[in-house]
Amino acid sequence: MLKVGLLGAGRIAGVHATAISSHPGSTLAAVSDFYPENAEKLAAQYGSVARTTEEIIADDSIDAVLIATSTDTHSDLIEAATQAGKAVLCEKPVDLSLERARACQTATATTGKPVMIGFNRRFDPNFGAMKAALKAGDIGKPELLSITSFDPAPPPVAYVKVSGGLFRDMMIHDFDMANFMMGEPPVWVMAAGSSIVDPEIGAAGDVDTAVVTMTYADGRIAVIKNSRRAVYGYDQRVELLGSEGLLQAQNMLENTVVKSTTAGVTGAKPTYFFLERYMPSYAAEWAAFMEAISGGGALPVTLDDGIAALAMAEAATQSRKTGAPVRLADV
Amino acid sequence: MLKVGLLGAGRIAGVHATAISSHPGSTLAAVSDFYPENAEKLAAQYGSVARTTEEIIADDSIDAVLIATSTDTHSDLIEAATQAGKAVLCEKPVDLSLERARACQTATATTGKPVMIGFNRRFDPNFGAMKAALKAGDIGKPELLSITSFDPAPPPVAYVKVSGGLFRDMMIHDFDMANFMMGEPPVWVMAAGSSIVDPEIGAAGDVDTAVVTMTYADGRIAVIKNSRRAVYGYDQRVELLGSEGLLQAQNMLENTVVKSTTAGVTGAKPTYFFLERYMPSYAAEWAAFMEAISGGGALPVTLDDGIAALAMAEAATQSRKTGAPVRLADV
Amino acid sequence: MLKVGLLGAGRIAGVHATAISSHPGSTLAAVSDFYPENAEKLAAQYGSVARTTEEIIADDSIDAVLIATSTDTHSDLIEAATQAGKAVLCEKPVDLSLERARACQTATATTGKPVMIGFNRRFDPNFGAMKAALKAGDIGKPELLSITSFDPAPPPVAYVKVSGGLFRDMMIHDFDMANFMMGEPPVWVMAAGSSIVDPEIGAAGDVDTAVVTMTYADGRIAVIKNSRRAVYGYDQRVELLGSEGLLQAQNMLENTVVKSTTAGVTGAKPTYFFLERYMPSYAAEWAAFMEAISGGGALPVTLDDGIAALAMAEAATQSRKTGAPVRLADV
Amino acid sequence: MLKVGLLGAGRIAGVHATAISSHPGSTLAAVSDFYPENAEKLAAQYGSVARTTEEIIADDSIDAVLIATSTDTHSDLIEAATQAGKAVLCEKPVDLSLERARACQTATATTGKPVMIGFNRRFDPNFGAMKAALKAGDIGKPELLSITSFDPAPPPVAYVKVSGGLFRDMMIHDFDMANFMMGEPPVWVMAAGSSIVDPEIGAAGDVDTAVVTMTYADGRIAVIKNSRRAVYGYDQRVELLGSEGLLQAQNMLENTVVKSTTAGVTGAKPTYFFLERYMPSYAAEWAAFMEAISGGGALPVTLDDGIAALAMAEAATQSRKTGAPVRLADV
Repeated sequence: MLKVGLLGAGRIAGVHATAISSHPGSTLAAVSDFYPENAEKLAAQYGSVARTTEEIIADDSIDAVLIATSTDTHSDLIEAATQAGKAVLCEKPVDLSLERARACQTATATTGKPVMIGFNRRFDPNFGAMKAALKAGDIGKPELLSITSFDPAPPPVAYVKVSGGLFRDMMIHDFDMANFMMGEPPVWVMAAGSSIVDPEIGAAGDVDTAVVTMTYADGRIAVIKNSRRAVYGYDQRVELLGSEGLLQAQNMLENTVVKSTTAGVTGAKPTYFFLERYMPSYAAEWAAFMEAISGGGALPVTLDDGIAALAMAEAATQSRKTGAPVRLADV
Repeated sequence: MLKVGLLGAGRIAGVHATAISSHPGSTLAAVSDFYPENAEKLAAQYGSVARTTEEIIADDSIDAVLIATSTDTHSDLIEAATQAGKAVLCEKPVDLSLERARACQTATATTGKPVMIGFNRRFDPNFGAMKAALKAGDIGKPELLSITSFDPAPPPVAYVKVSGGLFRDMMIHDFDMANFMMGEPPVWVMAAGSSIVDPEIGAAGDVDTAVVTMTYADGRIAVIKNSRRAVYGYDQRVELLGSEGLLQAQNMLENTVVKSTTAGVTGAKPTYFFLERYMPSYAAEWAAFMEAISGGGALPVTLDDGIAALAMAEAATQSRKTGAPVRLADV
Repeated sequence: MLKVGLLGAGRIAGVHATAISSHPGSTLAAVSDFYPENAEKLAAQYGSVARTTEEIIADDSIDAVLIATSTDTHSDLIEAATQAGKAVLCEKPVDLSLERARACQTATATTGKPVMIGFNRRFDPNFGAMKAALKAGDIGKPELLSITSFDPAPPPVAYVKVSGGLFRDMMIHDFDMANFMMGEPPVWVMAAGSSIVDPEIGAAGDVDTAVVTMTYADGRIAVIKNSRRAVYGYDQRVELLGSEGLLQAQNMLENTVVKSTTAGVTGAKPTYFFLERYMPSYAAEWAAFMEAISGGGALPVTLDDGIAALAMAEAATQSRKTGAPVRLADV
Repeated sequence: MLKVGLLGAGRIAGVHATAISSHPGSTLAAVSDFYPENAEKLAAQYGSVARTTEEIIADDSIDAVLIATSTDTHSDLIEAATQAGKAVLCEKPVDLSLERARACQTATATTGKPVMIGFNRRFDPNFGAMKAALKAGDIGKPELLSITSFDPAPPPVAYVKVSGGLFRDMMIHDFDMANFMMGEPPVWVMAAGSSIVDPEIGAAGDVDTAVVTMTYADGRIAVIKNSRRAVYGYDQRVELLGSEGLLQAQNMLENTVVKSTTAGVTGAKPTYFFLERYMPSYAAEWAAFMEAISGGGALPVTLDDGIAALAMAEAATQSRKTGAPVRLADV
């Protein structure tokens, strides 16, 4: 039975707590949080105990930590946990600073401990089925990838200011999805972005609507569209044109009811936001982590994957500012 | 905290055990089964204990029982449990014999204890959304209901022989769905049926393909189509034409991936069978039972509902044999 | 070049005039109508001439007639035209009287002239593709057919009174569709019907909502649902369950635009009514008629087919009145 | 009755001939072609006559010409026809040379004669319905436009070499669609493109897969995806995210039949290519031209629109070569 320490007790930590507790091979040994009362509350709900982060990391009986704290603490905690001999599953992104993330990568490598980054969308059953079809050769050789990723509503501007910007905070998931589908990072990154949804976001130096085009060594192209606001719900679609066909992963809907009236034929909206849409992916992510560290197999998402996506976000950020394409190797 | 005894430890009992354990207001106090080792196994999985059915019913500290035993025991157990002062949630059908079910209803009524019948489909989010739209007046006055309900594969003939027949075993869910959507039972029942999927089923005296048409006092009509075999999966659709529109609850699919090739545009199949399709409904069913017995509110599905569906199955069985319509009031 | 006389100059005659004129092998030689000015007008539009029905039938230079007059004249005109040596394409139904239609069939048989009945839906590209898939064995052996056929709005009661009733006037198309898909007529016909859309229709002795179940010698079952009112448009769907799958022909929509807002995801309604939905089928029907009479091949829809559908309508009418199933061989 | 000369007798000219002949206000007065026998053949089919292009332009009884000749002759013929006092509907593009097209625009302006460019997709009922919904405010303020436009199969390399390249030959339709939906041209154009479908196309100096991102003065963004090969058919989709929702125009399908088997749920492919998909748009385009020149109203697509799309193609071509964004005002 793997004993797991959960660092962080916020909303997403609660989702992870369920996954850890429900998995037959893991148990939630302890929970910590910047606000101890939050850790107490979450621990109580799952029959666990609240401790400090330091205590958890120092406790040799704890085998693994799941890091679900604020982004600025990720690199430090990954380093501390791996140096303390623990396996790590860390929420994305690794860091807002690509430089710091790379330093963390170097430091971690020496420990030999497994570090998986929580790109949970790779474990969404729809994207998983799409990837499986791709690997099965159903559409031949991939050529043109298109990712549509719209949030239902923009976050508070206060959040935007500390988020690292749309490319590092929101599109980073889509960069990883591109890497997941294309099998490697692109060579060039070109970004267009504007603040058209909420002028406050623009005033804070960020964009709320963006299109990033990426080209690959062999001529393949990928395009990612992001918007901070799709009033009809969380719009999460991926499509990939190949030499022998097209694969599309479409939205999950709230229900399957269709109403036909004089006003038209109306179905349900997409599930509202990431918790609703991606809930099944968190349990699958944890199961994949468990399987890798138990069986000694390869991690399905590595720290390198986290760095790669972060580098793409960095390149997109630069490209958006200068208006010119950025070579990924140059960031 | 409601202490619950689970009678039966088969596959569906396992689903109920999860629902009971996960609900914040209930705890799985004991499990029984005809085969004690099955009860032991299920109890262990949920940190409960195995006991005999008699012990559970006799234990005054147990507040409620969930009956998930074989159909022929339902009436006896409902009577015993209610007479022992327990609230009951019993799997459908109440009984294969309408006469016995009615005797059970009479016996139970004297105890004043709540008995809910497990027509879990009423708690499926899709049918729930459809019913909500109907109640909201979205399609005006209902006129013509159509239920498509196909199993992916026929059961073993050994099962068919003891099942009470397609109308009592399989279509009983659809009879209840009709009552749920139409708000009352029909006046007339006309059935057509044949054994075309598997001649062994016909040899056992049952049908595997059937259409039942029902007419209501005010002229409304409902039609139910059943087949024991839809090789593409579990086909569960309901549509209702009203004076101002049409409502359709469509199938849940395994995933949202669509593949376009020279062969056509292919999407996923419906989720395979009832556990996959209706899994969310079991937790919702238990929550509704909990809410009713805790809050003293009305049960969402009553023993009367169970009797009504059983009477419709009886009428359909007679109609199929005689070829003539049967007045529901006459069975 | 086939010289064609068009008997009738109403709305559907106009559709046929276009088909006849556009076909490279046929020319519209003359048009007649009960109201000569209507014939004049239609003839002028297509560079043809208006004549009396008698003149057209007597004119040996005219090779074929298309009968698009009122139903009560069909049998007489089929007989007169075939006896005058002409090929005939006659709008459905053959007659409101099954007896009269059968007499027409006998009289016509002696002439050896081809008579095709205008069941245009057989030539709809969607139903055609469905039939082709069925013949290709895509779903194995057919077992359960379901036809949904709803008009957008009820006709005037004055029309209902002379229409022969819903079964002969409206469902007759669906009876033919069942024969087209199942390859033979059923053995038993059971009908339920009511007047729930418009009480005036009931007062006129007809129904506006009906379900007919039909059983076949080998155990197959078909069910047809009709309503005179689907406010969202013309609902024309066919589905057929077979031993290896399901085929569905779905509605044609007005356009492919989908709008997603906070209110849901809304697409276009079905095309409004039969002219919009079935327009392509009329040209295809004429082409099939041309091909059969030019090439000497078999007619795709025969007078026998017209009689068969009419007999099913008769059986359904009787069944609805008596409440009992009617054996088709008995009508 | 407007007398129309048709310049060109190729495949698309045949489509226009049908539209001109079928319209109640226009007649096909003459047809010319580089190969006189082609003109003879097409003229015969529509009861018209074959003449030389010069004769048609010199004939004062001819009111309008439809130019469907090879692209390199468009500018000259537009100038000659307008100077001869004729109204003009010219197939896209105006010219492969932006400079020549602008000179044509100047020369034509002095004649005061109406010149419409044949961007037929504006008259597709689906895009038309989408534009109507946009104008009705159904999705609020537009923010992010996405156009997917894939051909079913690449053209012969011989054609590619004289086509002006993918941006001028194929994407020009999409540039116009962007202008149609966004209501104005963009400020910046950024193109990525590669030859991944057919290396011969790359060897000929062109691309076969491309993504163009465009940004507008007010922050709106549009992205166009082109591929020369979608083996499943002609993929023509447009979607537009606005402040209050999303509009999507989806593909037209060959039919509405859906087949469910153990292999999945399969529907029909998109209609194969532009003639099938856009056939209705050509008649609507001609009707719109007729309405504008008869009623003296504004042309729905002008020579300016043709120039604007061509300038965008020029900008995209430059951007693809340099890798840098191009300001539209600079081309």
